[in-house]
Amino acid sequence: MSALFKHLRIHQIFGANTDVGKTVLTSALVRASAARDRKVFYLKPVSTGPPSEADDQHVVRYAGSHKRMIETECLFRYKEPVSPHLAAKLASEDGGSQIDVPSDSTFANAIASHIRRCASSSLHNAHMYVETAGGVHSPTLSGTTQLDSYRPLLLPTILIGDAKLGGISSTISSYESLLIRGYTVDAVLIFRDEYYRNMEYLQPYFAERGIHVSAVDAPPPKLDNYEENRVSTEAYYQTIVPEDGKSEIFAIIDHLDGRHAARIRDLGSLSTRTLDTVWWPFVQHGLVDGPKDVNVIDSAWSDFFSIHNSQNALESSTSSGESLLEPQFDGSASWWTQALGHAHPELTLAAAGAAGRYGHVMFPQATHQPALELAEKLVHDGPGKGWASRAFFSDDGSTGMEIALKMALRAYSTRHGESLDVSAKKNLGILGLKGSYHGDTIGAMDACEEGVYTSEWHKAKGFWFDPPTVSMRNGTVTISLPTSIASAMESPVEAESLSWVYDIPARLNSPLATTYRDYIGDTIRRIKASGGPELAALVLEPLVMGAGGMVFVDPLFQRVMVDVVRGTTDVTGSWSGLPVIFDEVFVGLYRIGMQSTGPLLGVNPDISVYAKILTGGLVPMSITLASDSIFQAFLSDKKTDALLHGHSYTAHPIGCAVANKTLDIIDKLVEGESWLNAQSRWTNLNKNGKDSTVWSLWDPDFVSTLSRMPMVEELMTLGTVLAVNFKDEDGGYASQSAQRLLKSIREKVTDEKSLSAAPGGAPFGIHFRTLGNVAYFMTSLNTPPETIRSVEDRIWSALQDAI
Amino acid sequence: MSALFKHLRIHQIFGANTDVGKTVLTSALVRASAARDRKVFYLKPVSTGPPSEADDQHVVRYAGSHKRMIETECLFRYKEPVSPHLAAKLASEDGGSQIDVPSDSTFANAIASHIRRCASSSLHNAHMYVETAGGVHSPTLSGTTQLDSYRPLLLPTILIGDAKLGGISSTISSYESLLIRGYTVDAVLIFRDEYYRNMEYLQPYFAERGIHVSAVDAPPPKLDNYEENRVSTEAYYQTIVPEDGKSEIFAIIDHLDGRHAARIRDLGSLSTRTLDTVWWPFVQHGLVDGPKDVNVIDSAWSDFFSIHNSQNALESSTSSGESLLEPQFDGSASWWTQALGHAHPELTLAAAGAAGRYGHVMFPQATHQPALELAEKLVHDGPGKGWASRAFFSDDGSTGMEIALKMALRAYSTRHGESLDVSAKKNLGILGLKGSYHGDTIGAMDACEEGVYTSEWHKAKGFWFDPPTVSMRNGTVTISLPTSIASAMESPVEAESLSWVYDIPARLNSPLATTYRDYIGDTIRRIKASGGPELAALVLEPLVMGAGGMVFVDPLFQRVMVDVVRGTTDVTGSWSGLPVIFDEVFVGLYRIGMQSTGPLLGVNPDISVYAKILTGGLVPMSITLASDSIFQAFLSDKKTDALLHGHSYTAHPIGCAVANKTLDIIDKLVEGESWLNAQSRWTNLNKNGKDSTVWSLWDPDFVSTLSRMPMVEELMTLGTVLAVNFKDEDGGYASQSAQRLLKSIREKVTDEKSLSAAPGGAPFGIHFRTLGNVAYFMTSLNTPPETIRSVEDRIWSALQDAI
Repeated sequence: MSALFKHLRIHQIFGANTDVGKTVLTSALVRASAARDRKVFYLKPVSTGPPSEADDQHVVRYAGSHKRMIETECLFRYKEPVSPHLAAKLASEDGGSQIDVPSDSTFANAIASHIRRCASSSLHNAHMYVETAGGVHSPTLSGTTQLDSYRPLLLPTILIGDAKLGGISSTISSYESLLIRGYTVDAVLIFRDEYYRNMEYLQPYFAERGIHVSAVDAPPPKLDNYEENRVSTEAYYQTIVPEDGKSEIFAIIDHLDGRHAARIRDLGSLSTRTLDTVWWPFVQHGLVDGPKDVNVIDSAWSDFFSIHNSQNALESSTSSGESLLEPQFDGSASWWTQALGHAHPELTLAAAGAAGRYGHVMFPQATHQPALELAEKLVHDGPGKGWASRAFFSDDGSTGMEIALKMALRAYSTRHGESLDVSAKKNLGILGLKGSYHGDTIGAMDACEEGVYTSEWHKAKGFWFDPPTVSMRNGTVTISLPTSIASAMESPVEAESLSWVYDIPARLNSPLATTYRDYIGDTIRRIKASGGPELAALVLEPLVMGAGGMVFVDPLFQRVMVDVVRGTTDVTGSWSGLPVIFDEVFVGLYRIGMQSTGPLLGVNPDISVYAKILTGGLVPMSITLASDSIFQAFLSDKKTDALLHGHSYTAHPIGCAVANKTLDIIDKLVEGESWLNAQSRWTNLNKNGKDSTVWSLWDPDFVSTLSRMPMVEELMTLGTVLAVNFKDEDGGYASQSAQRLLKSIREKVTDEKSLSAAPGGAPFGIHFRTLGNVAYFMTSLNTPPETIRSVEDRIWSALQDAI
Repeated sequence: MSALFKHLRIHQIFGANTDVGKTVLTSALVRASAARDRKVFYLKPVSTGPPSEADDQHVVRYAGSHKRMIETECLFRYKEPVSPHLAAKLASEDGGSQIDVPSDSTFANAIASHIRRCASSSLHNAHMYVETAGGVHSPTLSGTTQLDSYRPLLLPTILIGDAKLGGISSTISSYESLLIRGYTVDAVLIFRDEYYRNMEYLQPYFAERGIHVSAVDAPPPKLDNYEENRVSTEAYYQTIVPEDGKSEIFAIIDHLDGRHAARIRDLGSLSTRTLDTVWWPFVQHGLVDGPKDVNVIDSAWSDFFSIHNSQNALESSTSSGESLLEPQFDGSASWWTQALGHAHPELTLAAAGAAGRYGHVMFPQATHQPALELAEKLVHDGPGKGWASRAFFSDDGSTGMEIALKMALRAYSTRHGESLDVSAKKNLGILGLKGSYHGDTIGAMDACEEGVYTSEWHKAKGFWFDPPTVSMRNGTVTISLPTSIASAMESPVEAESLSWVYDIPARLNSPLATTYRDYIGDTIRRIKASGGPELAALVLEPLVMGAGGMVFVDPLFQRVMVDVVRGTTDVTGSWSGLPVIFDEVFVGLYRIGMQSTGPLLGVNPDISVYAKILTGGLVPMSITLASDSIFQAFLSDKKTDALLHGHSYTAHPIGCAVANKTLDIIDKLVEGESWLNAQSRWTNLNKNGKDSTVWSLWDPDFVSTLSRMPMVEELMTLGTVLAVNFKDEDGGYASQSAQRLLKSIREKVTDEKSLSAAPGGAPFGIHFRTLGNVAYFMTSLNTPPETIRSVEDRIWSALQDAI
């Protein structure tokens, strides 16, 4: 809902079918609102059929004595009395005139613009009614159905029920279709019918669901004589909207006014109440400066939240034409989860279908179609292709990593069992990189160094290398070596291009590779010689360490790490040296433009973990993939040798069904125009002209220019991710420089002249997250290029202002 | 779907509205199936209107030359041509005859019984069409709408689309209502209409969703003269179902045959494919004896799975009249998650509504209505009432417990910070009970003793008491004391009644309480004196230790533990002694008949954890509640002091919305007749006649009798849980005795004479889980008494047979 005004109550009217009385009942509402001395706006976005019989004409004709209070508008008018999509098509096919069929965003923007105009033109209490065409799922002009076309605006809704035989069914089905798009139905109105008595059934049905139902007398039969018909119809309206202001229709007006006031009141209370009862993750409540610091999310759609602007809410109702709700770009893809944008109807239906078929069902020693389909997708056609044999389900990246660690530790200790006593097993170590992060549970944390995130019980188990990193500085791609290596090589290394950095085969025989190899090998030997922990697994976030600060690691270093721990012995069909775990919770499934990192690195892991994007940004679920030789380490005839780890909701069908649908949609997306265009922009940039697997949805020119700005230390981008490291002498997790420099992009920019890329074209702010002095921006996989361009412009302007 | 036969393909026909051609198109399908030389069963479960104009008459009249292949049936016939619920009501109101309106289960059972009769009467390839009445959501006889009434049977579905103006909308909405109940739509059929051209829109729309759409010519207008009308209609059927067997209708028959074959083939492949790619939790794959050991769950409804019977599938198609799908009672409530049964439509809609409004949205320093509502429910009106101030969201019981531990450890080390060095903090200990289990992540495991579940990295941090336990032995409620205490008291202690055991105020001054108090106090002093771990938190699963073997702990012992660690100093408004954590993941939210255990124990925790039932058995989510004084330990102006723990999908709106709906439904349930009846049965049993907070959905006579059986060591029940400990000299996690003794209840029992309590009245097997030599059975909170009685009978018979 990007349009909520104190002084303008808006309702959209959907019909349970065509010809159920939408226009008659809307006309009655308009007349009653006017009788209550309200300014009334009636909007019929699309009208089909002869103009003289159009609904807006009807509304005006029967507005009664308060006609001067009413303004009507029709945005798209077509003459054929058929479904709007067909009428628009016929009109555009009509040789006489060339009429383009408006796109969904043009359609939503036109309605939203009209609403904003009405809101600013009337600063007294006014009512607005937006009447849709046909039934809830009748196609609009583009062919998208009504309830999806209007969804970006998410207006409070009145459903006109169907009083005819069969009308109970169409009313309830229509309600369900609205509900699963997130609409709030404030009232159901229906004609009274003494024979079919649908009202008798629907009234208690909807009352149980908290929805008010009103029955109104049906209009008299249409008369052939125009004047007789007018008189009879006017008499009808006088009956249902009587002069004394007392009737069911007036009661509805009061109910709708009440809902409007309650909506504003509730929304206004959320921030304070949240500060009273919620304990947020990763938030220091002591630094939260009151209700204004709470992001109140009323709904979300595509890449945008619809948030409550508490500042606008504070203004008195008569002095502000501003919406209490405004769009906000979800600049962290909601903590890296969003793949396809919020409230994607196909994902909703996939979730609901699985809920309706299974709910959740027991998984150990059982199976169901969505779980098996997902396991097969990941193992055979997904990131496990070519190496994985098994999928193990859990709930989130952290539990998925704990399972991965248990697998690796067991595989290692089974193979080396005889030489390990109990204490040695408890202290088996991980080899990894400084800045790694594998989730918040204590076991996953123990696979990382001590740091700000760790709890009292944390015990760092292993050894972590300082990684060489990749970034763009002043327009140049650079590999920065840690001091431990820099002694042997000059640092930083300037790379000829981004694609060169990620061309592992070309770099494997470089002097730097040799340096890496020697350094890693020497270090491991030194750990062993000095009685350090017995290393039992190599654990990597390939290419990017996310929570550790969006650190892009030199892929060559990670490749060489794998090569070194595996040694030269290629044990076919089994893991070699140390089991290798790829934590692809963040980078996997196209977050950085590739399905998985193995093909780029040229090596496969023995175990890997997926979450976040996996379920399309809807519900938690994680999958740990393992090779057959890892699985074999647990296989015996003893129950106690099994991997005794599992969560109650293991392989919950909703998560599996949503994941399957997400992966199917992504498969089409990665071949789509938007991605091909972005890839070609980056490929053209490669000096060697070769196709590259590394590319970004962010524009190469923007990225390069940004890297040259004075406050930017370095930056890096791959796929959907853009991470900017700001210069800051303090640095670290507590740094505020990124927040400070970019503060202004949180606020919306009002530009009267043009529509924004947000739903309905409203001005928008940007929500983004920082990790110390690194600000990152992350899109969905399907964020439209125009939205990304728009975010780029805002970043650019904010930093220009900060110079 | 509890009815799937190799030799009998069944489809039910739903309409997108009334009067869209269901009967005409079904008649055409019947005629075409007969023309293909199939035996055809046509079932119209409910018919309204004059019998001579009934749909089954129409089907027979226009069956063409293959009439002898067709059998029709109508189960409920009413004369008024109105919606079935109204027709039934009018008939039952009719003074002349008293006709009861059939209940939903009578209705589903009648249909299912008819289907089974047809299946066993025809062992050759046959087709069956079940024609519903009105639209998908038209009410059936009881008033429940069609698609919910037919849901227990989950038959493959044909949707008859609506060709009229507005028909695109009603067709798609109807499809969505079917989809979210788990139905599979095999085909959409619709009349051809050259003006509105709905087919043009619907064909690609449904193709994208994998659904076949066919258009068929509409019938000629109805003629007033009966004979002329008959001839004209017959001519129509001859056109659309021609003698040469080639037409769209025949193509549909082929398509439906293909879908039927594919359904059986896919279902048959699931077990083998699962064994190839899935790694199950808690399962030793080495002990799985091939595909027959895989529980293939095709769908679920209420307390039952619908499973694939691979044995029936192996029979040749002609020799078996048995369904390939059969109901199976979900005897572990799907690992303790189910609160309201599977596929509850209100939960599905709550999930879908939240998905449609938000998807998932970012939670740190943000809020949304479902999350806040849930936090407030739990803190103010739920288990947190009177003590909790904050709700912290995570993903599952294990992560919820890790958060609880981090809270407690921090609270303790903040208060005692000066005396703790880094090593002491890392080794802070937990006080608990032997047999505790708090989840599978490594940190949660470290709060428990070493055991079969623990991994290489496990380090038991703390001290665990051997608990006194409560059970029923030979009809007598008994408290068994561990040897460490038994030296001071005679053991076992025979209790006068179950309610006496749980009457903490009455027992607090008993000699046993003093013994407990001294023993606990002495032990803690000894730990301290001997340089044992510095204890930093008391962690309890109150009343029942679930995964540890369904051990019912003497509540007095747990109460005294809390009293002792808190000491006599009552620090108002702050935690005292040690922070107390209640792990109510299993016992909370009415699993054992009470919302939380605090009121019974007479003490509140400082931290508590909820999951499983919380989300109504649909998706993973957990909440950790904390008192204000725990929250204060993290409050400062330093980010790094915050609780730096969070999961990507924190407070995901789907989970919150489902939880809110679940808690609302439970609130009504606990006041409902079924619970009051069960409670009064147990209250009457109390010798002191007092109302008791302890009671069970299981029958007291059954429980008492069961406890006297020779192979039963002891048993215990509370709320939905019945745990039976079998005599077994081996014991332990690897014990097989419970599995062996109860093996026979996994198989369905066929009793030709009566219908079962399962969906459609089909014979059912029981799925149950064991923990070593303990078998437990767990119902939903709303499992009907007749289902529980039926499960009791099966347990009783199985054990009788085993004597």
